[in-house]
Amino acid sequence: METKYPLLNTIEYPADLRKLEKSQLKQVCAELRGYIIEQLANNPGHFASSLGVVELTVALHYVFDTPNDRIIWDVGHQAYGHKILTGRRTQFKTNRKFKGLSGFPNPKESSYDAFVAGHASNSISAALGMSVGARKLESDSKVIAVIGDGSMTGGLAFEGLNNACVNPNNMLIILNDNNMAIDKPVGGLSEYLTNITTSSWYNRWRFKTYHFLRKIGLMNDKKRNRFLRTANSIKNAVSGTHNIFEGLNIRYFGQVDGHDVLQLVKVLNDIKNFDGPRVLHIKTIKGKGFEPAENEATIWHAPGKFNPETGERFVSETDAALYQDVFGKTLLELAEQNDKIVGITPAMPTGCSMNIMMDKMPDRVFDVGIAEAHAVTFSAGLVKAGLMPVCNIYSSFMQRAYDQIIHDVALQNLDMVLCLDRAGLVGADGPTHHGAFDLAYLRCIPNLTIASPLNETELRNMLYTAQLPKKGTFVIRYPRGCGEGAPWQNHPFEEIPIGKGVCLQEGTDVAVLALGPIGNEALRAVNSQCKPSAETSSLDYAEAQPDFMSEANKVKSQKSKVGIYNMRFVKPLDEDCLHHICKTYKRIITLEDGVLQGGFGSAVLEFMADNGYNLPVKRIGIPNQFVEHGSPAELYHMLGMDAEGIAKAIEG
Amino acid sequence: METKYPLLNTIEYPADLRKLEKSQLKQVCAELRGYIIEQLANNPGHFASSLGVVELTVALHYVFDTPNDRIIWDVGHQAYGHKILTGRRTQFKTNRKFKGLSGFPNPKESSYDAFVAGHASNSISAALGMSVGARKLESDSKVIAVIGDGSMTGGLAFEGLNNACVNPNNMLIILNDNNMAIDKPVGGLSEYLTNITTSSWYNRWRFKTYHFLRKIGLMNDKKRNRFLRTANSIKNAVSGTHNIFEGLNIRYFGQVDGHDVLQLVKVLNDIKNFDGPRVLHIKTIKGKGFEPAENEATIWHAPGKFNPETGERFVSETDAALYQDVFGKTLLELAEQNDKIVGITPAMPTGCSMNIMMDKMPDRVFDVGIAEAHAVTFSAGLVKAGLMPVCNIYSSFMQRAYDQIIHDVALQNLDMVLCLDRAGLVGADGPTHHGAFDLAYLRCIPNLTIASPLNETELRNMLYTAQLPKKGTFVIRYPRGCGEGAPWQNHPFEEIPIGKGVCLQEGTDVAVLALGPIGNEALRAVNSQCKPSAETSSLDYAEAQPDFMSEANKVKSQKSKVGIYNMRFVKPLDEDCLHHICKTYKRIITLEDGVLQGGFGSAVLEFMADNGYNLPVKRIGIPNQFVEHGSPAELYHMLGMDAEGIAKAIEG
Repeated sequence: METKYPLLNTIEYPADLRKLEKSQLKQVCAELRGYIIEQLANNPGHFASSLGVVELTVALHYVFDTPNDRIIWDVGHQAYGHKILTGRRTQFKTNRKFKGLSGFPNPKESSYDAFVAGHASNSISAALGMSVGARKLESDSKVIAVIGDGSMTGGLAFEGLNNACVNPNNMLIILNDNNMAIDKPVGGLSEYLTNITTSSWYNRWRFKTYHFLRKIGLMNDKKRNRFLRTANSIKNAVSGTHNIFEGLNIRYFGQVDGHDVLQLVKVLNDIKNFDGPRVLHIKTIKGKGFEPAENEATIWHAPGKFNPETGERFVSETDAALYQDVFGKTLLELAEQNDKIVGITPAMPTGCSMNIMMDKMPDRVFDVGIAEAHAVTFSAGLVKAGLMPVCNIYSSFMQRAYDQIIHDVALQNLDMVLCLDRAGLVGADGPTHHGAFDLAYLRCIPNLTIASPLNETELRNMLYTAQLPKKGTFVIRYPRGCGEGAPWQNHPFEEIPIGKGVCLQEGTDVAVLALGPIGNEALRAVNSQCKPSAETSSLDYAEAQPDFMSEANKVKSQKSKVGIYNMRFVKPLDEDCLHHICKTYKRIITLEDGVLQGGFGSAVLEFMADNGYNLPVKRIGIPNQFVEHGSPAELYHMLGMDAEGIAKAIEG
Repeated sequence: METKYPLLNTIEYPADLRKLEKSQLKQVCAELRGYIIEQLANNPGHFASSLGVVELTVALHYVFDTPNDRIIWDVGHQAYGHKILTGRRTQFKTNRKFKGLSGFPNPKESSYDAFVAGHASNSISAALGMSVGARKLESDSKVIAVIGDGSMTGGLAFEGLNNACVNPNNMLIILNDNNMAIDKPVGGLSEYLTNITTSSWYNRWRFKTYHFLRKIGLMNDKKRNRFLRTANSIKNAVSGTHNIFEGLNIRYFGQVDGHDVLQLVKVLNDIKNFDGPRVLHIKTIKGKGFEPAENEATIWHAPGKFNPETGERFVSETDAALYQDVFGKTLLELAEQNDKIVGITPAMPTGCSMNIMMDKMPDRVFDVGIAEAHAVTFSAGLVKAGLMPVCNIYSSFMQRAYDQIIHDVALQNLDMVLCLDRAGLVGADGPTHHGAFDLAYLRCIPNLTIASPLNETELRNMLYTAQLPKKGTFVIRYPRGCGEGAPWQNHPFEEIPIGKGVCLQEGTDVAVLALGPIGNEALRAVNSQCKPSAETSSLDYAEAQPDFMSEANKVKSQKSKVGIYNMRFVKPLDEDCLHHICKTYKRIITLEDGVLQGGFGSAVLEFMADNGYNLPVKRIGIPNQFVEHGSPAELYHMLGMDAEGIAKAIEG
């Protein structure tokens, strides 16, 4: 180990890096790249993005005085090299593990992590705030936003750009252009960046003139803008290029080879003391230095474990289908039957498996890039044209389209399907990505139908139901990962009555009311072998889980006392079922994989208060805190939301 | 009347307009403008925007086959002329009145209103969806988005632009450039639009060439993009202009005088059958044709009643201060004491009264334009730099920054103040603008403190408390309009203990738990003369309201049985107070001016369930529906949320 990383091992913090000679930086990059590959081969995480910015990471920490100068990574999954160089090299093996390092920059973890960076496109706004603030407080802190071209398509990035020239600041935006989001890049901007050609002699000339004028005191903030505009005109005349950034009064430098660390150091040194907002456009290759990743960047975005020598990926086989596959394959099947169906995804065709439909029907799937708000409003427009959009957005990213759901969809009561993938606790990606809030933030919106399936079969049937005519806006939320092993494929479609739950098991004493897949934990808590009731015989869910907890076994004896209800809908609630339960049982337990404030359990409480029932209710769900990362099993266990925790709650 | 509008009176629907000769259109415009002025003088509404698009409105309906062709107005308050020409002229006197016409385009009201248009920047995405959908379904419907330059700064508009060239469509974007949002325009884009200069001979040349190539079948979608790019280069060489739209592969036409109706008709006819996304850039004057409005467009955005001859405005005097003034003046006062305070507003300095601080301290207030998401993330960056931002965004517009509150602010537990103006039912602006959802959508977010003041004094003290060190993210929501007449000005600041409510009146039987200003309705319901309790003697609220309802009088006799609590905080709840109430009273009524799903009343239910209390609870708030427009008094009465309704609930 020592011999493999002789330089890297001397770098605890960037100050150590800055002691090295420039001539040693190439070797630092090689070692850092090797270290990332070795680490990620055994401990899966985001891979290709971090490989692409090895040279940039080294150059930034070499040139800038971090952490006094602040780097904001957008999106943060390119920051592994940054973590390794900033005091976390030896801990890096705990990356993304329960109680280990976070997979994203995390200010709680290190002062080198300047800002939270789990959701795309926030870096420019945040950097602008820091930079304008630093100027106001007469701090010399410099601020650098490193933003991928994929993140540039988000509206927030544009809002930041549009404000960049308004207040005095020294923000440096590094546009890390690898021509990739997680999937292929989308939109006019992407084409534009591909075609941008800046004559380098002109940039050099302008740069030197500007610098000279500043030096001799002939350049101030006011003049800067005028100079920029004049200079731009010259440049356009020279290079035949229109430049969006300069159109917004942001000085543009580029393009620079993002894998030439010495050139990066030189350029960064040249421009670091400039005043005013600047863009440095660098070209990088996602997955750089690991051939399989360079060739298939989408697969190698987060490849799982692999052989660092051969590039062979170790894909773990599971019996149960992923909810994502159920969604993707069912969507294609429905689209084959219903020619009004179109699919919309903001940059996640592979992640949500809409690529299955995309491959067969490229004209009927719209990947709009990282642009969740647009995805929803665009879908609303498609409804107005007469189509039936199925718009799939991860639960935590749907927060970006909240107003669009209210104002552009629900207010017009449009017939469309909103799928929230990654609902509940997503695991290793942690608090920025957990789909914890959706039940609460959606439930208050009028006109929505909000459902969550118990298992694969139910997801399939909910999708079928949602696209039938006149169902209004139908929201389906489901988790990341494996289902219950229910035999869903080629199952005949069954319409699910809106607002109707099902009784999984009758009881007398305690009624467990579950929404979504967490209902399976309730079954596990109560039964080692689950017998589906007549009503749900079509759902072949929850085969025996022989290894569940000892607490759960104790509850077995009380089996007949415990009723279990799969409520399916948080909105509308199954009021008939609730009346029956409130009249029959002595206690109620509500179960949901969302926050306890305003979610499904609260809906049950509201029903009871409105109808004058006063049974004791214990609500199980995510408490009011940001939950850290870890495997879903670890997290749900920690929060008492697994079979063991539920069994305890049933015992009372 | 008949003689004043001879042509306008013949136009029931656009089909009638299209029967007229072109030579008559100028007169139609003059009559339409006169009619708008006459109507608005007596029945207040949005004024200057609609005057600015009279010619555009006439030209669009003359050239396009509405409603088969669809116009989306962004923002919708410029659509009065459109409403008058589309079957609603005689009803227009009911504009913005209870059960009358909506002040915004409303698809429920007319098939000519193609899309909801209360929040800015959604038109391009919606139009793109309609246009792409029309193409898919082989409809000949054309889609036109009319977007103001103010709306162009919103990220959603950019997301739409970035996707405009990706799928086949014939969307026409009309950039209505009046160099105004509601306040002055902001940002690089605004400067850019001011400086854009397109050589008109070049545009004519390119336009003709393109048209010719299409005609002879040499132009298809693929070639279009290539042609555009080549043509752009020529243009840049010619005109020295870089064009953001063309950088995004959207054809640009402009600029055209937006007050020359004949030229507009000509240009629209020329380009209406073109394929592919296009921008037509027109220059208009907000308030055109009414001199006072042309001179002071911000004041005349929504001027209230006025004399149509002289331009004299009839400003109604009230005894009580506006909550907006309390905010604005208190903010300035605090900023004078605390030099860390900075103000942030997305295009609403006048609306929220941050202009008071802006006038005195222009360097410490940031108007970021219509860009709510940026406003919040930029504020987060300012905190990281060491400042104390007070970011003020209307409640319904804060829906645009939902993810930013979660991801960029709360997750980092930043010390800052978020003010939600226009909380509760806003009145005439209707369902797009009601601040109904904020309590529900914010309450589920960890780390937030969420407060709502009973009256002016409490707003003042909450602002004071929120900016003190280490208070975390402090949310204050308050309504539009007049307070209670409490003497707040120059009142010494008092820190309000976080999570502590106050008892306004002790009781024995029914406890009314109120959040925010609706607590005053509870006081009115119970007392004709309110006696502040000792604890709240510093709050000189709620002087006698002699004219309250007869229902309320009946309750008077039960006075001593009814306790009234001003809870102040929905998060954290005052648990000590709640324990006391649950142990003391027989019934609970919760009051809030927000939705009943997941709001304050639900928080009380959650507390009770978690602590094993089972008193009957009646929750009063906004039911789960989009509430239409009308005066706040009419709406709250309709929903049983005024003193009369509360009195009934107290009676049981």
